[in-house]
Amino acid sequence: MKNYPPVSALQMPDRLLLGPGPSNAHPAVLQAMSTPPVGHLDPTFLALMDEIQSLLRYVWQTQNPMTIAVSGTGTAAMEATIANSVQPGDIVCVGVAGYFGNRLVDMARRYGGDVRTISKPWGDVFSLEELRQALETYCPAILALVHAETSTGARQPLEGVGELCREFGCLLLVDTVTSLGGVPIFLDEWGVDLAYSCSQKGLGCSPGASPFTMSPKAWEKLQQRPNKVPNWYLDMTLLGKYWGSERMYHHTAPINLYYGLREALRLIAEEGLENCWQRHQQNAEYLWEQLEMLGLIPHVAREFRLPTLTTVRIPDGVDGKAISGKLLQEYNIEIGGGLGELAGQVWRVGLMGYNSRKESVDRLISALKEVLLR
Amino acid sequence: MKNYPPVSALQMPDRLLLGPGPSNAHPAVLQAMSTPPVGHLDPTFLALMDEIQSLLRYVWQTQNPMTIAVSGTGTAAMEATIANSVQPGDIVCVGVAGYFGNRLVDMARRYGGDVRTISKPWGDVFSLEELRQALETYCPAILALVHAETSTGARQPLEGVGELCREFGCLLLVDTVTSLGGVPIFLDEWGVDLAYSCSQKGLGCSPGASPFTMSPKAWEKLQQRPNKVPNWYLDMTLLGKYWGSERMYHHTAPINLYYGLREALRLIAEEGLENCWQRHQQNAEYLWEQLEMLGLIPHVAREFRLPTLTTVRIPDGVDGKAISGKLLQEYNIEIGGGLGELAGQVWRVGLMGYNSRKESVDRLISALKEVLLR
Repeated sequence: MKNYPPVSALQMPDRLLLGPGPSNAHPAVLQAMSTPPVGHLDPTFLALMDEIQSLLRYVWQTQNPMTIAVSGTGTAAMEATIANSVQPGDIVCVGVAGYFGNRLVDMARRYGGDVRTISKPWGDVFSLEELRQALETYCPAILALVHAETSTGARQPLEGVGELCREFGCLLLVDTVTSLGGVPIFLDEWGVDLAYSCSQKGLGCSPGASPFTMSPKAWEKLQQRPNKVPNWYLDMTLLGKYWGSERMYHHTAPINLYYGLREALRLIAEEGLENCWQRHQQNAEYLWEQLEMLGLIPHVAREFRLPTLTTVRIPDGVDGKAISGKLLQEYNIEIGGGLGELAGQVWRVGLMGYNSRKESVDRLISALKEVLLR
Repeated sequence: MKNYPPVSALQMPDRLLLGPGPSNAHPAVLQAMSTPPVGHLDPTFLALMDEIQSLLRYVWQTQNPMTIAVSGTGTAAMEATIANSVQPGDIVCVGVAGYFGNRLVDMARRYGGDVRTISKPWGDVFSLEELRQALETYCPAILALVHAETSTGARQPLEGVGELCREFGCLLLVDTVTSLGGVPIFLDEWGVDLAYSCSQKGLGCSPGASPFTMSPKAWEKLQQRPNKVPNWYLDMTLLGKYWGSERMYHHTAPINLYYGLREALRLIAEEGLENCWQRHQQNAEYLWEQLEMLGLIPHVAREFRLPTLTTVRIPDGVDGKAISGKLLQEYNIEIGGGLGELAGQVWRVGLMGYNSRKESVDRLISALKEVLLR
């Protein structure tokens, strides 16, 4: 057997992450993550899981008992909502106005969903009337919407959508990946039945442990399905026995990530959720003001603009990729490029969690000025 | 909106984790995990992914191009091997001699596998002749075996099994969750087509990023399947485009866990893989010797005993749960209880990764003496 050539110690650059995520984890979160682990069935760890559940209910403003962290990234939590709600043959209506709407379509089809889509140009949102029409037309078992479309920076209003869904007897499934912690969400008030998010954006944690919640109504549907959930790792009937009072072994939780997530949620509770939302809004408005002073125009109408993520139109004649490359290489600042329909047309600038600070904006604007005017 | 009541700062006990896993992560790994994150498409992160792939090939002794870390725990990597190899209707033969054999059965069925099992009492292993008989009887598309059964502490010899599988034209899928890094493995020499593991045992990392590998033959089968893999998060045709040269966005990798995994693998390369295996063997032998001096008997025959995990028979008249409870509460030492058929009959003692040290054994034996003789 050959020996492996020497590997140097880990050396990573110190980036300011102002893309669509991940954003920089709060230093206290990184410190919590380096705490020596206990076992996944240790009484102290089970108590920590209870705290995480309770804090997640707070940030989502829900009473759902089945509110947990999935042991994977936001995409895993997304798949968990689909896997546990879509039964083969179910009509699933998906609102597509960006990349993640399309991802929901692909996932729902893999689980046997009979998918019908309603579409809007990337950056737009659906009106209540358009949603009513879709429900009338398709009579779906599930309506899936993206609250915060990470590919466009648009915020889909959800007031009244839950009532509409109850009127038509369907479940409401919502993507809150880029909204949780940074954008007002009232899950129960809005009548949302299934939601998922991630840890590395508004919550200010590192990626890998992802919020998931389902309403008692969605839980009831799951209990009544005739076949097993076709995904073992994300099967909530099994996971519910680990997170619930049975404490039945399911998988080895990513202990240190849960330490980080608990710390990130603790910091939000300490700040106060409404204050946290306000901070995101204020810093985003400051960013928009500064961008406008540089002559840069946000892609989304102000009314529907996410405070967590801003898509900025790349001016004519500017090589967007060259600019973001310079920001990364010369200033250690990451911003994102456009995805799908918006590829090459926008930059994506995130101000999320710990990074939603005036100094993040100042550092970006100052670098952007230098790079654009060079 | 109500404020959340104050949450205290994170305070976890300092346990010595000598159960079936997780084991304590190496301090250097915990430190690496607290490095501020970069983005999941940052050139420096893509280079780190390449290093992880190359180091995983080394610890598995394989040349498989498709060797990656799955962004979930070992169970996710397990499901990834099933999801990407089992097509509906495929005959899957599973060797069941413990809890994780049964888990493979459940998973393979969820993916439409026509499962046939061969069984042995928990703690035993299959002979080459028994495996030949199974292949003759069932002509499976896939033979799934557990190299290191975490529920029993038995090591399934794999020499010659790959040749047998080639003779019968089937793929060989192997669970190396409790062997990788701690038990000699020669994946290519043994002709293994699919394997998975975890980070928190022999590799000495924290849980959450899990090794996965598939041979060119298994990859070819995946390319030829008529339908999409019914699991989006674990679909290797998509993941291959993120880990491969396309670098196509799939999900936000758990950045900080990858930092930890890279450091854990670096430490093994520095120690030398063979030295690492020897260390595990030597410390296990020392444990067995010390247990015997206390009159305690390992459950598995010496020839098939795992160096990473020892099942110890609970003596007649001893309350196994009370003993492990005292070890945890009074000595901060975690050991495991029995699972399934072995519930109440054995303790499970792990010496894995960073915890495979003489001082771990000494601390355990000294505490065990006090607790047993009280």
